[in-house]
Amino acid sequence: MTTPPSLLSLTIHSAIHNLSRISDLSFLPDHVVLDLFLETLRAGKLNERVLKLFVATGKDEVLSLIEAFNIQQIVTPVLPTILKMSQLNIMDSEVDIVVGALHSDLTSFMNEWKPIFSQYHLIIVKDPELKEDLIIPDGFDLDVYSQQDIDRIVGASNSIKFSGYSCRYFGYLMSRKKYIISIDDDCVPAKDDKGLLVEFVAQHISNLSTPATPFFFNTLYDPFRKGADFVRGYPFSLRSGVACSLSCGLWLNLADYDAPTQALKPSLRNTRYVDAVLTIPAGAMLPVSGINIAFDREVVGPALCPALRLAGEGKFRWETMEDIWCGLCVKVTCDHLKLGVKSGLPYVWRNERGSAVESLKKEWEGVKLMEEVVPFFQTLRLPEAAVTAEACFLEIAKAVKEKLGRSNQMFARAADAMVEWVEIWKNAGSGPLPVDN
Amino acid sequence: MTTPPSLLSLTIHSAIHNLSRISDLSFLPDHVVLDLFLETLRAGKLNERVLKLFVATGKDEVLSLIEAFNIQQIVTPVLPTILKMSQLNIMDSEVDIVVGALHSDLTSFMNEWKPIFSQYHLIIVKDPELKEDLIIPDGFDLDVYSQQDIDRIVGASNSIKFSGYSCRYFGYLMSRKKYIISIDDDCVPAKDDKGLLVEFVAQHISNLSTPATPFFFNTLYDPFRKGADFVRGYPFSLRSGVACSLSCGLWLNLADYDAPTQALKPSLRNTRYVDAVLTIPAGAMLPVSGINIAFDREVVGPALCPALRLAGEGKFRWETMEDIWCGLCVKVTCDHLKLGVKSGLPYVWRNERGSAVESLKKEWEGVKLMEEVVPFFQTLRLPEAAVTAEACFLEIAKAVKEKLGRSNQMFARAADAMVEWVEIWKNAGSGPLPVDN
Repeated sequence: MTTPPSLLSLTIHSAIHNLSRISDLSFLPDHVVLDLFLETLRAGKLNERVLKLFVATGKDEVLSLIEAFNIQQIVTPVLPTILKMSQLNIMDSEVDIVVGALHSDLTSFMNEWKPIFSQYHLIIVKDPELKEDLIIPDGFDLDVYSQQDIDRIVGASNSIKFSGYSCRYFGYLMSRKKYIISIDDDCVPAKDDKGLLVEFVAQHISNLSTPATPFFFNTLYDPFRKGADFVRGYPFSLRSGVACSLSCGLWLNLADYDAPTQALKPSLRNTRYVDAVLTIPAGAMLPVSGINIAFDREVVGPALCPALRLAGEGKFRWETMEDIWCGLCVKVTCDHLKLGVKSGLPYVWRNERGSAVESLKKEWEGVKLMEEVVPFFQTLRLPEAAVTAEACFLEIAKAVKEKLGRSNQMFARAADAMVEWVEIWKNAGSGPLPVDN
Repeated sequence: MTTPPSLLSLTIHSAIHNLSRISDLSFLPDHVVLDLFLETLRAGKLNERVLKLFVATGKDEVLSLIEAFNIQQIVTPVLPTILKMSQLNIMDSEVDIVVGALHSDLTSFMNEWKPIFSQYHLIIVKDPELKEDLIIPDGFDLDVYSQQDIDRIVGASNSIKFSGYSCRYFGYLMSRKKYIISIDDDCVPAKDDKGLLVEFVAQHISNLSTPATPFFFNTLYDPFRKGADFVRGYPFSLRSGVACSLSCGLWLNLADYDAPTQALKPSLRNTRYVDAVLTIPAGAMLPVSGINIAFDREVVGPALCPALRLAGEGKFRWETMEDIWCGLCVKVTCDHLKLGVKSGLPYVWRNERGSAVESLKKEWEGVKLMEEVVPFFQTLRLPEAAVTAEACFLEIAKAVKEKLGRSNQMFARAADAMVEWVEIWKNAGSGPLPVDN
């Protein structure tokens, strides 16, 4: 030890938070590089670029550690994980990350996600009801959309409102990528059960780009994950699976509970990391949470729109139902088109916001609606002639109008919004982006 | 240290393997008790009785450790786990553990399971084709049945054979308990992802005694587990769930793959501990493995019988299909009766046996059958008049005979076996046990 420990540890601590700005470590003494490497690992800051940095030092101790910890592919350094975008044969450029900004200051959100976000194109849509300007740190490849873009491209819609959580759907409309990943701005990256940073994008893309198995349940969950397979009794004719169109991720810490549950169990936190991805069987319905999802925009994009708006919709997740409605539409569409929906990994860490007790009055509306909505979707069968997501979505809208619309104006409005959305999607959601005028 | 470390560690090692015979530790020096406690924890040997033993020493260090490790309920010492049979309001005496003995020497199997098995009544059924006498260690509460019991109680059946893995079903017939847990004799207790011994019985009974949720999928899996709940969007009217009738556990190390998968990937081992239990949605079919299951005998017992026997059935799991067939019958029955089937925890550790390559020729028969069997069960609908498991099972038998029986004699025989089983169950599977004559 040539320097006092406290000073060294402070330096290392500071270096870890500035790794993204460091391009050379080779001038450092061996033991400092070693300590820095260990602390980087502990802090969950090891990513492809950082690993490259350490490998480039050529320090024997570090290289031995990388080998000892079984961090894969030392020759071409990569993330210490099974999932690599390159192995999935998906280009980073095929992915858009969409964030609906309900808060003006995105600095800490963006910085927390930097190791992941910095590799992808981002679409940030500002909630039209947000008055303050967005504060977004530098160093990202992004497009920001706000009220005036919505007005310019969609015009004044009668039935679709892009305010609150629904603003993200405008981002879906503006994307031209195959895959969209959508994340709420109150979430930060999670760590897995081994303390490693969750491979957020790679896991979602793996879910979407490997087959789904909706027609028979595999008890060892996703048979396409490394180390797994189809179990005895699984029909061979079903083992090739079908394409997956929607990947629903989960939440650690604050889970996506409704207001009554939050209010009844205010200290309830999700600490269980379930290391699984599974296909939701055909015919089974699930509550899709928009907090953390990914989907194949080219296939099911037209079926994701902010159709169901609660009269008392608010700025807390538990005051919204647009994503749940959306998820039921997509599930029915996927079942009809023989496409898959997966749920499970990746997790995000969700921070706390708001008082559930305050929201209780609003929430009951959504809670009551589900009693009608779920049986409707469970029994809905689409005509064989519907062979695209657009066609399915229009059929669903028709059925909503006929069967639900009479009992509640909210459903009639949702049906109108769905029809209008398909029009908007045709005009603005494909082809070249409308140019600024 | 007053004794040489090597001698002490040898003593402690030996003591751990004899904990069940030790009734007092208080005469030991403090540091020996402490070391013994730590080693007991590491070896996964801490159970209720052993914890009581350590608490009874009154040694401060041990009591502090128990508190520091957050081992619950120090005043009334219990297993360091969430699950306690007493909390489930289920008596140990309501459970039978059934083992089909395909090997004569059960010594190591029984000893490995002793911490768990010693609390329950066991039913061991000897494979009628096994020539040697069974070797079973002392210290268990058990009944052993063999060929002559089968002959005496069932008589010479035309269509049901109780040989090989099917011998366990005779044990189901002899049980008078509410719950049956069935385990293959090549499995030993597993440890969870925290290194603790899996709560094998308590987990199965928890699965069976808490509600199942087959009519809407909960993305956080079992909402009745500690720390979980129903997520936003889950209809309140469905949150009370339905009774669960079948609990399907999983396998670490050697998973239940078929012979082709085993032969293609001989080194494939399941190392992923997925900390989840989930209800298989209504309408979805799954491959139930008989290696590690539990069920409510009073409700679905009559629907578990060894009906489908492959022409080349052998003594390896991948050479059998009787459990897969059984599972499909039970799932259709549960869906019809609005009962639940769960899959996931608890795991068992499955040891290796046999060469899959040798079995390949036999296995293809089972593999081919599934291509006909799965669509049959997926589309099978039972008449509303069938309101018991017996009635459902007879309806399934009728449909099997009509729709599958013509194409393959094996199915016709399965249908006969199912009808015969219901008769046998009525005569021998309920009421007082037939007395020895």
